[in-house]
Amino acid sequence: MSLRVGIVGATGAVGEELLQVMEQRRFPVGELVPTASARSSGRVVRFQGRDWPVRPLDRAALRECDVVFLSAGAAVSRALAPELLAGRARLYDNTSAFRLDPAVPLVVPEVNPHRLTPAHRHAAVANCTAILLVLALAPLERRFGLERVVVSTYQAVSGAGRQALERLKDELRRELAGEPLATGGPPPFAFNCIPSIGELDPADTVAARTTGEERKVGDEVRRILERPDLPIVATCVRVPVLRAHSESVLVELRDRDASLADVCAALRAAPGVELRDDVARGVMPMPRLAAGGDGIQVGRIRPADRPGSFTFFLAGDQLRKGAALTAVQLAELQFPR
Amino acid sequence: MSLRVGIVGATGAVGEELLQVMEQRRFPVGELVPTASARSSGRVVRFQGRDWPVRPLDRAALRECDVVFLSAGAAVSRALAPELLAGRARLYDNTSAFRLDPAVPLVVPEVNPHRLTPAHRHAAVANCTAILLVLALAPLERRFGLERVVVSTYQAVSGAGRQALERLKDELRRELAGEPLATGGPPPFAFNCIPSIGELDPADTVAARTTGEERKVGDEVRRILERPDLPIVATCVRVPVLRAHSESVLVELRDRDASLADVCAALRAAPGVELRDDVARGVMPMPRLAAGGDGIQVGRIRPADRPGSFTFFLAGDQLRKGAALTAVQLAELQFPR
Repeated sequence: MSLRVGIVGATGAVGEELLQVMEQRRFPVGELVPTASARSSGRVVRFQGRDWPVRPLDRAALRECDVVFLSAGAAVSRALAPELLAGRARLYDNTSAFRLDPAVPLVVPEVNPHRLTPAHRHAAVANCTAILLVLALAPLERRFGLERVVVSTYQAVSGAGRQALERLKDELRRELAGEPLATGGPPPFAFNCIPSIGELDPADTVAARTTGEERKVGDEVRRILERPDLPIVATCVRVPVLRAHSESVLVELRDRDASLADVCAALRAAPGVELRDDVARGVMPMPRLAAGGDGIQVGRIRPADRPGSFTFFLAGDQLRKGAALTAVQLAELQFPR
Repeated sequence: MSLRVGIVGATGAVGEELLQVMEQRRFPVGELVPTASARSSGRVVRFQGRDWPVRPLDRAALRECDVVFLSAGAAVSRALAPELLAGRARLYDNTSAFRLDPAVPLVVPEVNPHRLTPAHRHAAVANCTAILLVLALAPLERRFGLERVVVSTYQAVSGAGRQALERLKDELRRELAGEPLATGGPPPFAFNCIPSIGELDPADTVAARTTGEERKVGDEVRRILERPDLPIVATCVRVPVLRAHSESVLVELRDRDASLADVCAALRAAPGVELRDDVARGVMPMPRLAAGGDGIQVGRIRPADRPGSFTFFLAGDQLRKGAALTAVQLAELQFPR
């Protein structure tokens, strides 16, 4: 098998990660069609030992691909998807455009792979924070039933894109040199926690108190778990970490008799979960350790304040497992070798 | 009034902040007795335009002080307090040594000043994270009754002391220069989130799943609010911020009819609380903005998933309001002008 693979947004943070993941997993790419916005024209991407010129959004070439990964923002996906589906390509969409569309499955391979059938030519990859969270929630839902989830996040700056990452580094260099930061722009990433990620809906005064990221985490986790009734209280915060998101999670289980040992066992057995749960020996999830990994780290598991209530900490690479790797895994499900 | 004021731990992060706060508030210091461990011998501290030589732990001189601020760790306070109380000094203790001692009041001036009477010659200053949290919880407890608190923290590296702060900066310089970090030591602060603050109790396998900081937050907030029954689920995490802690807080109120407007009004009216609650306009609590401030910032206030359940974010300077300022305020209560 040799596939023609297109990438929309090939020079972005997720695009670059997609290339790395496909190479590492030997995804059967015969021809690569890397595309990006006009800003990246003239650039090349390195893949399988070759330089591939980055093209502008070449719709005709993309329509002839077997596989297209969409990671250039929701507006681009919305505009492009119907046109590409008129061709032969199967789409794996890293943007939020179709994640709540009932016709487009929202699939995390370790959780609900059965929702992706051969008939589906367009699959949505969930929000990075939602993917990392649902990997830990799914085994608890399956074994004990979830009644409520409260989550506070610690999200890396690379989640805001490559330019944000460069801005963080530049701010840190200035601060360490004792130079003043530019004023008047967005709040600095350096040495800061910013409790606002994603766009607000200015039309809705109630929803405007919930950020876009917080809404996505709730809506997407509920959809993946097929629990439209599940209460999820999310607070999403940007922290000055380069890579890998962390999450502090409280769960209330239906099964009030679930013991700490039961919960640890369920998490230990879950695909995509690595237990790092011995804080007395310094063994705990940390973004620096989780960066580059294929799953999430879970630790600090402990009983909370009432029967069936537990709390834990997790960390996972949001560009890799939270985006690129999950997208490639979905393609692998549809193009088995 | 002109007081003889001793500081135990004068060259530490809290000690230096104490000097600044006393100067800014014109606390009536006639003579200063700055003491520190042998490591600081030969140093001076600057106060009211003068250099004061730092002495080793001069017990005789401290016993003759009117006021002694203790901020050199719990072991030093435990050893020193009985001896100093045999003299004339009133002690304001920034360490954890006596915070749960029924004979020593644990007072946050904005919350329970009536617990500090003229007869008390030893008062405990609460843990920094607990002080910041209780400033927001107290008005909610008073007006609506608290039923449960869930908090995840984002704690600055200066909370781990001056050496930790220097280590963070050194790590960042190395990382930005592409140099490797030292391996084998404690986990790096740079670009990391560390979900472990404070000592674990190795003797107790259940408690060993809760860190020292998490235990302090629960125990001390319960004591200050005089609600020994209040469930508090805390997860304490170190983030690469220089100064000011942040906290993501969920509260469940007894009064299920409390509206968002009621909760905002109660917080707005609370002493020591500054509302920054308009995320759509970028107005939110952030540690960079909270550093150097005398109170906490509260924002992102929103209803959670059930009646009487709300969530919010706060930030406050843990060295200033979380330690030094609160200690000086306690002294001001006992030495009014």
